[in-house]
Amino acid sequence: MTLTDDSNRTASRTKPRIVGPAVPSSSAVQPLGIGELRIDGGFWADRQQVNSEATLEHIEHWLEKEGWLGNFDLAAAGTLPEGRRGREFSDSEVYKYLEAVAWELGRRPDAALERRFRAVVARVAAAQEADGYLNTRFGRPGQEPRWSQLEWGHELYCAGHLFQAAVARERTAPGADDGLLQIAVRLADLVCEVFSDDGIRGVCGHAEIETALVELARVTGDARYTEQARLFVERRGTGTLKDIEWGRSYFQDDVPVRDGTVLRGHAVRANYLASGAADVASELGDTELLDSLRGQWAQTVARRTYITGGQGSHHQDEAFGEDFELPSDRAYSETCAGIASIQFSWRLLLDRPDAAYADLIERTLYNVVATSPSADGRAFYYANTLHQRVPGAPADPDTPSLRALASLRAPWFEVSCCPPNIARTLASLEGYFATRSEHGLQLHQYAPATIDTVLPGGEEISLRVQTDFPAGGVVTVHVNRDATAPWTLSLRVPQWAGQAELAVSSLDGDETRTPAAGGVEVTRAFRAGDTVTLTLPMTPRFVQPDPRIDAIRGSVAVTRGPEVYALESIDLPAGIDDVSDVVVDVTADPAETERGVIVNLRRRSVDERAFPYAQTIDATSGDPQQVVLLPYHSWAERGPSTMRVWLPA
Amino acid sequence: MTLTDDSNRTASRTKPRIVGPAVPSSSAVQPLGIGELRIDGGFWADRQQVNSEATLEHIEHWLEKEGWLGNFDLAAAGTLPEGRRGREFSDSEVYKYLEAVAWELGRRPDAALERRFRAVVARVAAAQEADGYLNTRFGRPGQEPRWSQLEWGHELYCAGHLFQAAVARERTAPGADDGLLQIAVRLADLVCEVFSDDGIRGVCGHAEIETALVELARVTGDARYTEQARLFVERRGTGTLKDIEWGRSYFQDDVPVRDGTVLRGHAVRANYLASGAADVASELGDTELLDSLRGQWAQTVARRTYITGGQGSHHQDEAFGEDFELPSDRAYSETCAGIASIQFSWRLLLDRPDAAYADLIERTLYNVVATSPSADGRAFYYANTLHQRVPGAPADPDTPSLRALASLRAPWFEVSCCPPNIARTLASLEGYFATRSEHGLQLHQYAPATIDTVLPGGEEISLRVQTDFPAGGVVTVHVNRDATAPWTLSLRVPQWAGQAELAVSSLDGDETRTPAAGGVEVTRAFRAGDTVTLTLPMTPRFVQPDPRIDAIRGSVAVTRGPEVYALESIDLPAGIDDVSDVVVDVTADPAETERGVIVNLRRRSVDERAFPYAQTIDATSGDPQQVVLLPYHSWAERGPSTMRVWLPA
Repeated sequence: MTLTDDSNRTASRTKPRIVGPAVPSSSAVQPLGIGELRIDGGFWADRQQVNSEATLEHIEHWLEKEGWLGNFDLAAAGTLPEGRRGREFSDSEVYKYLEAVAWELGRRPDAALERRFRAVVARVAAAQEADGYLNTRFGRPGQEPRWSQLEWGHELYCAGHLFQAAVARERTAPGADDGLLQIAVRLADLVCEVFSDDGIRGVCGHAEIETALVELARVTGDARYTEQARLFVERRGTGTLKDIEWGRSYFQDDVPVRDGTVLRGHAVRANYLASGAADVASELGDTELLDSLRGQWAQTVARRTYITGGQGSHHQDEAFGEDFELPSDRAYSETCAGIASIQFSWRLLLDRPDAAYADLIERTLYNVVATSPSADGRAFYYANTLHQRVPGAPADPDTPSLRALASLRAPWFEVSCCPPNIARTLASLEGYFATRSEHGLQLHQYAPATIDTVLPGGEEISLRVQTDFPAGGVVTVHVNRDATAPWTLSLRVPQWAGQAELAVSSLDGDETRTPAAGGVEVTRAFRAGDTVTLTLPMTPRFVQPDPRIDAIRGSVAVTRGPEVYALESIDLPAGIDDVSDVVVDVTADPAETERGVIVNLRRRSVDERAFPYAQTIDATSGDPQQVVLLPYHSWAERGPSTMRVWLPA
Repeated sequence: MTLTDDSNRTASRTKPRIVGPAVPSSSAVQPLGIGELRIDGGFWADRQQVNSEATLEHIEHWLEKEGWLGNFDLAAAGTLPEGRRGREFSDSEVYKYLEAVAWELGRRPDAALERRFRAVVARVAAAQEADGYLNTRFGRPGQEPRWSQLEWGHELYCAGHLFQAAVARERTAPGADDGLLQIAVRLADLVCEVFSDDGIRGVCGHAEIETALVELARVTGDARYTEQARLFVERRGTGTLKDIEWGRSYFQDDVPVRDGTVLRGHAVRANYLASGAADVASELGDTELLDSLRGQWAQTVARRTYITGGQGSHHQDEAFGEDFELPSDRAYSETCAGIASIQFSWRLLLDRPDAAYADLIERTLYNVVATSPSADGRAFYYANTLHQRVPGAPADPDTPSLRALASLRAPWFEVSCCPPNIARTLASLEGYFATRSEHGLQLHQYAPATIDTVLPGGEEISLRVQTDFPAGGVVTVHVNRDATAPWTLSLRVPQWAGQAELAVSSLDGDETRTPAAGGVEVTRAFRAGDTVTLTLPMTPRFVQPDPRIDAIRGSVAVTRGPEVYALESIDLPAGIDDVSDVVVDVTADPAETERGVIVNLRRRSVDERAFPYAQTIDATSGDPQQVVLLPYHSWAERGPSTMRVWLPA
């Protein structure tokens, strides 16, 4: 949806405490925080529960087992670098874990979890040096000097994740006496001193600290951090980092941020940087930078994004490829890039609530964030391929896997950024679902939920959202409280829906409409008992790719609502051995059944040749057979199999 | 062609000295060496001349400039490791250069080049240690210990290239007093001692020494080297190397060589290993191993090879992908993998002269080996993409480029295996063109050539091959000498030809035939003045891919004879901006003109969308326009451009 007047930015008159990630000082719309919106059940509540009950404990277990928590103890004991374990960025996984637990405690107080949180904070605190420096990998005798490895050292990146943990804690437990915010502030003060224009005029090879500094400024009120973030954003693209095999675009150090036209290089770094730049621009009112970021976002979505919302097609440098370079079988689509993309989209949405941002967030949530973790929350995909050519082997349950190994989901990785990133995202997921403005409330994502909030003008709102989305397409918003004045309920109509049906049932009179993709607004002095029902068409459909995406030419995918479907070899009928041998019959629409979506497939038999290129290559097709497709996010839950999202037509 | 009785292996009765790469002690057919077959002009003579006049000097210049030659001087002076430059395998580039020069001196004696050769050998000799060890990167105080880095150290790999240089020298200048063979023998003796079953039971991460040891055994007569090669081949696949992110398949250490079913992992390593295994099997009569290698070759060609003959689709690990994972835009197709594939194919051909091996050699020569070097012989492609999406920048003329940078051809690389590999291949190219057996002579590749040889039975043969292939398809073999008894001239009919025309003009009577792909044999007591003319159809054609190659579904390529053609943006007519915007009209056959091959293209205009996947995506095509395609090997010679081999149909 696009607000009629988006220049009317909503500065909080009442300055309510908003408990969630990314809370701009002012923005077109304000996020509803944890507590204001509670997810009551369904698809995402299930995943939040698994995250709460299994994933958080699983992560702490591995942080301990791999010695990444122990590194802080060694630092405190003065016995580093001997005994240090893990990669150069392992500290950050501890911080992302702390952030996840902080959000979780905000959602659901738990004395045992609180104790665990404080115990980890205490171990981190003990490792901080007198001047505020905190990193287990640098600066001690026998280690490389502080700030000497800006390309690959991840020192500022780790600092950023520490700040985000402290921000989450301060938002969920303001003034808590655990000391985490003070640890962050001392390190942030040191960073501002060291990286001022009178100091090291550099940036970190992995963007992250930019958004974290702005968020830290938001909770502390210290504008120095925003200024430091601005410096980091402005320096990026001026070639302060060394050139490398994949070019400075890997670090986004090739072109100044505001001169970019599309996201490029390492897909996580690019999205974190864009998020940080959006935060800086939002705080400083830098509309030129925001305009540039909006343009980059649009180009990236139109030309460098998978149907799943996943981003980044290169394994080698974990990078975006060129425009339309989107292979299915070598899709990298890193879980963390999906999460970072959601953060970027969300920041643009807060500045200008266009439905396109929420569309991409929805797509990425259902097809990347929901795909990475296993159903039990104890194994993860680091990369999310769209075409698995050979069945993956089960991952080693006791040893960290390699990041993009062709295996089933793995419990842990040598580079284990994804598990705690999933955890912090699920634990703060409410923060991405709805916003408010002077005019009313905007629902961007659909889930069973309870909403109790106050508009900036003081209007109190109490709603209950009832739906089984995405199983079904009916979303009913029940109004629980009489309004004192008219306000606007805005509901997103996703692009995939094309058109929706809206029914308002009210004491003041019923109404129906058929809103087009984008959104629909209902403005009323709502009365308790009113309902607004949005019905989204959930018919499964064949989807075609832009013909410039060479890798999937002549293929179709099946989608239903926001979910992309996949064919797994385990579901093939007798006579079809592998997902590489199928042709889909596009003349028969995909059909919804209780088992999944049914399509008609034929077995394609190819004339086996000595050389696979010739003037004519004969292929014959067998009789059509009905085959079930399941949502992509559920694939590889039933053992090793081959899989494909795009089906040759 | 397949000989009627390939069990009748041709052991040289007269033991003629064969001057070329890969000379088995016995094999179904024997290679004709340099001197027995001389390329007199045309496509390959031009490239050999550039190699001789420009590339060899260019390589020596860079070896000196980068200090890779200087490393040997530092070693001799005892001032290593200080000052050492280059990667861990830089010694091997010096050795490949020596091999190239040795072959070149065999083709064309040149006193100045001979002096340069000896000067480099003397510098290498001075660096050899008392016990025969020779490597500038290991074993000295301050360096890692000898043989401590089998996964990545390339010590045995470097030794292998030294041996191949010494073999080339001994074949072209037997008994030369430069000492190169003695250097190789001393190091080989040390390797046999250290890597016996009583010593280090390991292998090198990069196969190469296996084929080199067998070749060294062939020139020295010392069977210990073959036995050591056998040990290395048998140990491979037993997991003696550490596991790595990409799996032990990267080193081919996942499965014993004889249990393999397809080439896998790093494409250069895989082909060098297969070549070495074929050499071992040939020397030891291990038909089981040879059968396995033939099967692996066939599977690799049918499922893991580009239309150019190029192999290896992964940038990250320079590896083969899975079956049918052959993206054009991320084609790695490393030049050295193409060369290594030719070596493997050639060894299988010598054991069983099936035309399929020579077909792949031809394809790889014209589309990989001819593509890598620039026309002036002073710049190279390391990787050979089949689809360039953005114009490459000119390479830095003074600094080594990064291996797979999206640039135009580069003068040198940090990993500079390809330039000297091209040089040694072109300098010994005659060695891959023809063979002889008890029964007669087999022509595998077509070029203007003079052939003077003696069959194993004693029959002297003198031929002249006249052709402008691949510009034209007529190959005329002139017989210069009366035969004393009937012998068989075998001519390959390439698979791409489908069918050819044969005309024999002889004092004993004329004859015409229309042989099918594979080959044709003419058995006669030839008389001086007889001619055998093979006419190959050179009509340009559209070629289709196996439909299991997802990346190029719905596309066609244009080939003419062995040459693959490419569309470059520089040749697009006004109104078509980029090679990504074209659709080819396959109803009109490609037409040959003096400018190149003409096809009809339309500009495709795609409905620009916010998200590139939808139920319907509209695309319209403009009017057909004639556009010229040129041979792929000549692309990027006219400045930066985009390019594609596969055209959407």
